Amino acid sequence: MHETTRLAGLVQERINDVVARHRKALEPLGPDTEALLNEAIGFLSGGKRFRAQFAVLGYRAIRPLDLEGEVGEELGAALDAACSLELFHAAALIHDDVIDRSDTRRGRPAAHRMFAALHATNSWRGSADHFGLAGAILLGDLLQSWADELMQSACDAIRDPERSRRAREHFNRMRSEVALGQYLDVLEEQQPTFAPHDTQLERSTRVLVYKSAKYSVEAPLLIGAALAGASAEQERGLASFGLPIGVAFQLRDDLLGVFGDEELTGKPAGDDLVEGKRTVLVTLARENLPDTQRRIFDDLLGEDLDRDQVGMLQTTIRGSGAVEQVEDMISRNVDRAMAALESAPVHADAAARLSKLAERAARRTF
Amino acid sequence: MHETTRLAGLVQERINDVVARHRKALEPLGPDTEALLNEAIGFLSGGKRFRAQFAVLGYRAIRPLDLEGEVGEELGAALDAACSLELFHAAALIHDDVIDRSDTRRGRPAAHRMFAALHATNSWRGSADHFGLAGAILLGDLLQSWADELMQSACDAIRDPERSRRAREHFNRMRSEVALGQYLDVLEEQQPTFAPHDTQLERSTRVLVYKSAKYSVEAPLLIGAALAGASAEQERGLASFGLPIGVAFQLRDDLLGVFGDEELTGKPAGDDLVEGKRTVLVTLARENLPDTQRRIFDDLLGEDLDRDQVGMLQTTIRGSGAVEQVEDMISRNVDRAMAALESAPVHADAAARLSKLAERAARRTF
Repeated sequence: MHETTRLAGLVQERINDVVARHRKALEPLGPDTEALLNEAIGFLSGGKRFRAQFAVLGYRAIRPLDLEGEVGEELGAALDAACSLELFHAAALIHDDVIDRSDTRRGRPAAHRMFAALHATNSWRGSADHFGLAGAILLGDLLQSWADELMQSACDAIRDPERSRRAREHFNRMRSEVALGQYLDVLEEQQPTFAPHDTQLERSTRVLVYKSAKYSVEAPLLIGAALAGASAEQERGLASFGLPIGVAFQLRDDLLGVFGDEELTGKPAGDDLVEGKRTVLVTLARENLPDTQRRIFDDLLGEDLDRDQVGMLQTTIRGSGAVEQVEDMISRNVDRAMAALESAPVHADAAARLSKLAERAARRTF
Repeated sequence: MHETTRLAGLVQERINDVVARHRKALEPLGPDTEALLNEAIGFLSGGKRFRAQFAVLGYRAIRPLDLEGEVGEELGAALDAACSLELFHAAALIHDDVIDRSDTRRGRPAAHRMFAALHATNSWRGSADHFGLAGAILLGDLLQSWADELMQSACDAIRDPERSRRAREHFNRMRSEVALGQYLDVLEEQQPTFAPHDTQLERSTRVLVYKSAKYSVEAPLLIGAALAGASAEQERGLASFGLPIGVAFQLRDDLLGVFGDEELTGKPAGDDLVEGKRTVLVTLARENLPDTQRRIFDDLLGEDLDRDQVGMLQTTIRGSGAVEQVEDMISRNVDRAMAALESAPVHADAAARLSKLAERAARRTF
């Protein structure tokens, strides 16, 4: 746990340095850019840092890395990759909140709400909401390019073209897959009806895999490992661990999106229900319901629900037995991941830490 | 002219290859991603390709490059950089059209309109406009990451860490500056009143420089030149040419945004007036108007104008003498650029082509 805190501190320090360096370089653009850059810092100060941790542990699975003392070139490279993923994730969340019309994130207003509030406070001209949208789009774009710079700088510090090439390959695939995964997620919500169960489950699982599982765990692990010079066999081992943990991570997220404690998640309770997300959890719940109840369920999902309606849907989902099914799936995925990790040819010390981190990702309450 | 056509063909071919390669790699995500990938191809098939041309000429200013025959490794690298800039630009335009609420681009519906139409055609659930927004945000994000990949591949092919480093430095600075430049542009439109003339001119010029001049000409030139191994002196020479040409390019854009022929620009006539853009042209026009006329002008600018009102504003701007002032500024910037080019230590052949391209950029009608 001490190491986790130390890593979180190192990541935050480095992110602050990165923003400060950019702020300095962008001074010629004048003081009006302040609000945008402040929001960058604000947004980048929170989060669970799972991706950063998986990236650094991916590295350590292949090469030892001393997290104590001075940050040398090698730890610096691993940290740059870790911070790159955090910046990329921040950019994705900022855009995602616009797309999902989410007003809160990490217990504070979403970026687009912050820019809208800035507009309102200043009594500016035109639509505060549209200014919020514009600010959030541009902040996301900015952070996406900074993420990319940091990945470059990680690769440069490694001084090994082959390791860099592999790391960037994983990074690049991850970026394309997450954009398309998000698109598929949005597309799902637009469908007038649910598909027949098997098809729907396949579609919901596809979104879960590409929008989250690969992106949150497998890709960060592989990027870290590739930077450290992992062999193809080592990468395969880590992927066989990372993907099921990513699946478990997102299944937990599905549960938190319906039953999560607002105080802990920083998102309104039942958020996924209001957004009409067709998660694996929701898909399983529907399948378990008798026809009449399913019809009521479908009518409510994705509507502007009040607290009572959210409560009713929660009870329905719980009563359907889908929660146990999802908990089972989480456990099975964690087991599969742990078995894969045991036979993966990686450093035992890092494997032990990975297994703990995986447990936390799969069992978290926020 | 023959070479320009050849280059445009090479760029388009390479862009098609890039999209085809990504499409293949993304097949596991299933056929529902088709619409997004088709829109990528559709959007990437148009445009004036100024950035690609400046990048390739930046390269040729430093090292000869044969555009005929087989595309070898060196030409391939220059083309990758050129295509990277075109992809990045497409991404920026897609997001910009959302921000500016522009419905048309390159003579076809803007990306967000296309996605909204897809929603409407399929009678999907929820808001077609919001789906349009989501699709456009995600397509822009996707193209931004592809742009980055292409720049990486250009740098890899160069096999010279120092040249790569310099090229990426220019690319990175460009990306940050254009995001912040766009933010300042949006911020300008929100201000309830115009600032006092000198301040306003300074602010409008800042937006022009960062959102467009550096981004459209100076940065592409420097990226190409750095990839080719330009010395600091050569880069300085090209920058002294590129910045004023970029300024002239955007001043022309300001004129086209008010007086441009809809058929040629692919944007509605007087688009900038409806959007309330505080361009240098508009700032100069206001300053020239008597108080009462200025008040009427301010009341109309940025409103939902009909054709007659657009016509009235056009006449007012023309009558104010601001058009001549801007034409003068364009000419002075072109002259300054040409003088800088003459003394820049670069290949004469490329310089001659640059000077022609610069004339086209500054005098274009679309």
